[in-house]
Amino acid sequence: GGRCGIEVTALDALLRWLDLAGIAVFAASGALVASRKRMDAVGFILIAAVTGFGGGTLRDLLLGRTPPFWLRDPTWLAVASSVAVAVFFTAHRIESRFRALLWADAVGLALFAVLGAEIALLAGARPWAAVLLGVVTATFGGVARDVICNEIPLLLRKEIYALAALAGAAVYVLLRVEGVWRDPALLAGMAV
Amino acid sequence: GGRCGIEVTALDALLRWLDLAGIAVFAASGALVASRKRMDAVGFILIAAVTGFGGGTLRDLLLGRTPPFWLRDPTWLAVASSVAVAVFFTAHRIESRFRALLWADAVGLALFAVLGAEIALLAGARPWAAVLLGVVTATFGGVARDVICNEIPLLLRKEIYALAALAGAAVYVLLRVEGVWRDPALLAGMAV
Amino acid sequence: GGRCGIEVTALDALLRWLDLAGIAVFAASGALVASRKRMDAVGFILIAAVTGFGGGTLRDLLLGRTPPFWLRDPTWLAVASSVAVAVFFTAHRIESRFRALLWADAVGLALFAVLGAEIALLAGARPWAAVLLGVVTATFGGVARDVICNEIPLLLRKEIYALAALAGAAVYVLLRVEGVWRDPALLAGMAV
Repeated sequence: GGRCGIEVTALDALLRWLDLAGIAVFAASGALVASRKRMDAVGFILIAAVTGFGGGTLRDLLLGRTPPFWLRDPTWLAVASSVAVAVFFTAHRIESRFRALLWADAVGLALFAVLGAEIALLAGARPWAAVLLGVVTATFGGVARDVICNEIPLLLRKEIYALAALAGAAVYVLLRVEGVWRDPALLAGMAV
Repeated sequence: GGRCGIEVTALDALLRWLDLAGIAVFAASGALVASRKRMDAVGFILIAAVTGFGGGTLRDLLLGRTPPFWLRDPTWLAVASSVAVAVFFTAHRIESRFRALLWADAVGLALFAVLGAEIALLAGARPWAAVLLGVVTATFGGVARDVICNEIPLLLRKEIYALAALAGAAVYVLLRVEGVWRDPALLAGMAV
Repeated sequence: GGRCGIEVTALDALLRWLDLAGIAVFAASGALVASRKRMDAVGFILIAAVTGFGGGTLRDLLLGRTPPFWLRDPTWLAVASSVAVAVFFTAHRIESRFRALLWADAVGLALFAVLGAEIALLAGARPWAAVLLGVVTATFGGVARDVICNEIPLLLRKEIYALAALAGAAVYVLLRVEGVWRDPALLAGMAV
């Protein structure tokens, strides 16, 4: 409680940067899977968009926030497409695309778990529900990517990822509810 | 029409028990699939939650009821997780996990077909739409489970299940619209 | 701006016919996949409904229009089921079911790309968002069909389809925003 307009604006900006960063790394992870499946540039963009937008879209639908974020501002699509095209032209030079994929997924999970929890808290969700929504936001994009590409979801092969998302969202929500400033809570949530 | 507060309360309680039972058996069916796929405990809980919550989540989204039930009350998550953990520790003792899976799916379909139709009727849907929503509620969780686990959906291999869900929801709605008390209609709908 | 009641009624009728035609061809494409997978009649109807209703359902959910179209009017379900049954009895006579499937998908994409864009414009979406929603409406049904049937989505094997949907929706929206009458814009959008 008791936040003034400037803080809200700063938080908005921070959330926006978090979201951009999360979408960029998830788009990269989607494009890496497209690369492993030897798709063409259109496939790269489609899978990058599904991976980058999937988690946030389900979060927005579950919270009743329509239309979802990527239909309200063309920036998100531009970011996801640019990342997809960049990966399209560079992926063949990466030594281990699977290792890069694991890293992109891990960073994306950390960013989206905290972001999803924060958005759920702002929408009035109770803490335990915010933690769940953080997990949903962080995991759904990657699951949709793997389902569409006809693979067993990475999340189910590296189950530690789900635990990390849960822990990150939980630590963040705990610190936020206890009234800690947002910035340190955010760092703690992502570090987990 | 003309129901008094006590009846509504009784119905609410009944719906809640139906929902709990349905989520428990679908969570068990999800955990059994996780067991067949040799996942660890986290995978059991994830798949149990997707199977148990999937049908009701799609029903709530289609009816515009947000947030969905499992974000409004932590009981559902506790039930699904407990069932998943219980199956995790006992599944290796079950003689035929596939037979147990078929039974769990059949019971879950019967419960959710009637529950989904009742919730749709309460939300003002016309009878034929309530029957459809009963089928959607009953079938989507199992389909999502099989899609994520990279299997041909059980529903498409045992098509009789879809007919049973349709018949159960239809009989229930017919009896309800004809003004029969809820309890016998419910039993008739599930028996089909 | 400045349309009178008669035009709106004519447009409504046109949209309805477009939607019926799109659902019919997508239902046929779903039934053809069911035929290739040797499902029984219930499987034909389920896959036809998923393919025919999938794109429009996601579009309606993203726009916050609930319940989706197929729960508001039983015509859609009757059309999809009839097509599925018709394909069930005739598919074995078709010489190349895969070629028929490609044609059904291409026609359905053209119809739904324009239809999805128009509905998004009517709902107040900005032009670029309407183009995106056209692509989502046109592609999601086929992707859901292939995911449920455990195939790599056709969309990712014939990526030209995604480009065609994008181009069709874009041409249509461009012409509409420039104030061209709807009918020629529609034809141009579908021709692309």
